[in-house]
Amino acid sequence: MLPVFGHTNPDTDAITSALVYARLLTRQGVEAQAYRLGDLNFETPFVLREAGVEVPPLLPPLEAGAAVALVDHNESSQSVANLQNLTVTRVVDHHKLGDLTTTQPAYLRFEPVGCTATLLLKLHHEAKLPVERTDARLMLSAILSDTLHFRSPTTTPEDREAVAFLAPIAEVNDVERYALAMFAAKSDLGDTPAETLLKMDYKAFPFGDSADPEYWGIGVIETTNPAYVLGRQEELREAMAQTRARENLSGILLSVVDILNETNVTLLASEAEEKVVGEAFGVLAQQGRADLGHRISRKKQIVPTLEAYFEPRA
Amino acid sequence: MLPVFGHTNPDTDAITSALVYARLLTRQGVEAQAYRLGDLNFETPFVLREAGVEVPPLLPPLEAGAAVALVDHNESSQSVANLQNLTVTRVVDHHKLGDLTTTQPAYLRFEPVGCTATLLLKLHHEAKLPVERTDARLMLSAILSDTLHFRSPTTTPEDREAVAFLAPIAEVNDVERYALAMFAAKSDLGDTPAETLLKMDYKAFPFGDSADPEYWGIGVIETTNPAYVLGRQEELREAMAQTRARENLSGILLSVVDILNETNVTLLASEAEEKVVGEAFGVLAQQGRADLGHRISRKKQIVPTLEAYFEPRA
Repeated sequence: MLPVFGHTNPDTDAITSALVYARLLTRQGVEAQAYRLGDLNFETPFVLREAGVEVPPLLPPLEAGAAVALVDHNESSQSVANLQNLTVTRVVDHHKLGDLTTTQPAYLRFEPVGCTATLLLKLHHEAKLPVERTDARLMLSAILSDTLHFRSPTTTPEDREAVAFLAPIAEVNDVERYALAMFAAKSDLGDTPAETLLKMDYKAFPFGDSADPEYWGIGVIETTNPAYVLGRQEELREAMAQTRARENLSGILLSVVDILNETNVTLLASEAEEKVVGEAFGVLAQQGRADLGHRISRKKQIVPTLEAYFEPRA
Repeated sequence: MLPVFGHTNPDTDAITSALVYARLLTRQGVEAQAYRLGDLNFETPFVLREAGVEVPPLLPPLEAGAAVALVDHNESSQSVANLQNLTVTRVVDHHKLGDLTTTQPAYLRFEPVGCTATLLLKLHHEAKLPVERTDARLMLSAILSDTLHFRSPTTTPEDREAVAFLAPIAEVNDVERYALAMFAAKSDLGDTPAETLLKMDYKAFPFGDSADPEYWGIGVIETTNPAYVLGRQEELREAMAQTRARENLSGILLSVVDILNETNVTLLASEAEEKVVGEAFGVLAQQGRADLGHRISRKKQIVPTLEAYFEPRA
């Protein structure tokens, strides 16, 4: 039974792509089972409930050498802790290729689309397998989630075509309305502790000299209610400073993305981050925050700018 | 114009897959051009002549940041020298994933099949593009070459199906006879200098601690006339010792593979290699050679055994 899982701090794509890929593999004769690497955010339970699907279990400890399939990630810093002792036999991902290596030739499928689910739909087509209602619902939700219903600059024509193809099978008549309900669920943060908010969609990235990189933590909160999150700025910055110290990071950022207006106000833990973000993005960064305007994609806009900033000069 | 190229010391798959993938991309609207990273072996000119195709030019120096597509390899040690300064946007490969990283999400397509061309045929099917005669001839030749006409343990059912599909389009009526003619061309080594023979199908592999690996050079000569090659043993071992010193390698091997009988006698540069090969494979290794029996695949049988031998003990 091949375990299939997405990244730590799972978002909707990480969870639903594990479920859909595990089912696809099983239909193709490779028995597979979906797992998760952490707690769900506030959007994914809404999606699973609407689709009538159970939350996948936490990945149990695996024996050294066990075969695994990764979806929606490939870097060891975003995966299970002992990844380098496991045998990665399959990856379906839409991120840049990081430090992944394989010990044997494997099935790797990467394309620069907005969502892993867009690729999974393609795999169904290639395998000439019909898409079932539940899978359609899960893939549709993942694409709307990852692309912020096509607002993100990561959106590709293939993501739009996938949603148009999936909506009737998923029996989602009003895609706009469904997306807004998803985003509302995601934004219903209630009295969630600051540390939980920070870590909900959070990844550590290596920058600079690849032989001896410095790591930055970058969290994103996509919300239809940014005023609520920004109202908790000091509490969040305190959690960021603690995380930076505990994880031995060089810096830590938290981008508060207004989904509907497509804007990003990023919280900065200290003056060190203010200097880097101010210089890297050419913006005013002070009093713990920086207005990054319409840069709402961590993958396509935040991380590449920081990479260029930290790139070792020849 | 996207440059497409295979590995250094190109074999038939490295050359023909660059040609076929460049044509496929161009037909799909991505203007691409095939290049090579070195001199041809003795088999590939036969294949190109039979297909009526020109030898692709040597890759010219590329500007930093230029986009490139790789076929049939992914490790920097087997690629263009400044790979880390280039932007890899596409890879089609059937080897294990090595130290490749990408700066942006890219198109990566890896599958554990016997030949890159088998994957390229699949890409034609997925794009719903008919395979043309010349491309069919090139892909057929690459599959026969990489799998030693299905003798190699790397052969998969998909490779066999691909040859069955391609042969009529390629107008190759007698596949067995065509393969033998290819292998005879490859074995017509004439008075080729020992150093050239060594380097014809040669790759350096990292073993041991991934942070500080030792490198071994491993050459393969696939021939229908092993007696001729083994008759030049001392000359070849001398070239191996010189290469080991010049390239600062920990060891160097040259496997002389008898294509028709599927056997492998491996030349060893010195007692250091005799010790490692003897212990790793559990065979008698003396007087500069070791009989490795039916282990004829560098990828599937030689390298994994050495990797296991050098693996750092926990």
